[in-house]
Amino acid sequence: MRKSNKVSMAVIRRLPKYYRYLGELMENEVKRISSQQLSQLTGFTASQIRQDLNNFGGFGQQGYGYNVEDLHNQLGKILGLNRVYNTVIIGAGNLGHAIANYRSFEEEGFKVKAIFDVEPEVIGIEIRGIKVRDVKELEDFIKENQIDIGIICTPKDVSQEIADKLVNSGVKGIWNFAPKDLKVPDDVVVENVHLNESLFTLSYMLKERINR
Amino acid sequence: MRKSNKVSMAVIRRLPKYYRYLGELMENEVKRISSQQLSQLTGFTASQIRQDLNNFGGFGQQGYGYNVEDLHNQLGKILGLNRVYNTVIIGAGNLGHAIANYRSFEEEGFKVKAIFDVEPEVIGIEIRGIKVRDVKELEDFIKENQIDIGIICTPKDVSQEIADKLVNSGVKGIWNFAPKDLKVPDDVVVENVHLNESLFTLSYMLKERINR
Repeated sequence: MRKSNKVSMAVIRRLPKYYRYLGELMENEVKRISSQQLSQLTGFTASQIRQDLNNFGGFGQQGYGYNVEDLHNQLGKILGLNRVYNTVIIGAGNLGHAIANYRSFEEEGFKVKAIFDVEPEVIGIEIRGIKVRDVKELEDFIKENQIDIGIICTPKDVSQEIADKLVNSGVKGIWNFAPKDLKVPDDVVVENVHLNESLFTLSYMLKERINR
Repeated sequence: MRKSNKVSMAVIRRLPKYYRYLGELMENEVKRISSQQLSQLTGFTASQIRQDLNNFGGFGQQGYGYNVEDLHNQLGKILGLNRVYNTVIIGAGNLGHAIANYRSFEEEGFKVKAIFDVEPEVIGIEIRGIKVRDVKELEDFIKENQIDIGIICTPKDVSQEIADKLVNSGVKGIWNFAPKDLKVPDDVVVENVHLNESLFTLSYMLKERINR
């Protein structure tokens, strides 16, 4: 088995898609599937799917295909979903609220331990039973509660400051929704969700299709 | 000038980043910038930036660099941000709420004309002054209000059905937050934001960095 840190980001970003499709197949009680069938389902070519999965060892059997449940479980492990991650959300605005209320993240092992904000009106309230705390307590809370992931839902102008606090307290993963590219040390991972950029990509593709 | 529909998706997805950085430079009253300086700021190489921008005509001047405001305006036009898009949100849950409350989208020309849901408890309420309507009215509303973009914030099991209704009513752009790959005709553009996949990419990258 090759070391997974040599796998390209393009491959890595396809893994959650395979995982999702296999989950749907399990819901539909499909027991096994060929790479050709997976190809029809996902839109990736069968050879790409085989190549992608071969990065992590061979899962399929010639002439049999893949065992759906087994491959789903293996992909879950590869994605690091076979454990619990403690997370905190910083920013209890609309997006922070929405993320805190996403039950499905918790079902996959991402547990929101606390939410932080600066606004006196929201500090002390609970969202889905999770207390909103003063951001001043952020660093102490992280150190005392083994927090793995910080989810930044703040305005962009404070996002770097928050990232610095997360990093200094030992957080190794940041899920960043602020429209800002954060500077972090090499041993910290940042995954960005830049909604503006996604929307502007849509308008780029759309602008030539509509005329009025 | 080459036709922009020949530009690769990789280039297109960098344009909103350039646009964002140029906006920040304008906020900081920077008047001009070289591709080298843009490179330091964005992390892309200077030659990549020049190549990307050359897809849309030459903007910089040898020895002068780029006029920040001019390039920002030009990129805005290229991204289709020099006009108004009428949008509807389907699904007034946490995420639909969050998107409806994002003022910055409206500032860039994306106007939310209505929000739709199936739940009697939310139909009739207003979010930021925008009425939540019965999803039964969706198709008529789209036809009567020249809706360009449908923003799908529903559970995944109804997302295809909603997409079909949007397409049948003439919507050409879909911003899809449901964890589902939608089937649409070739003349309709779908931009996905799959939050689960983003989070699982983070856990993949994170799992080898933390040991406990």
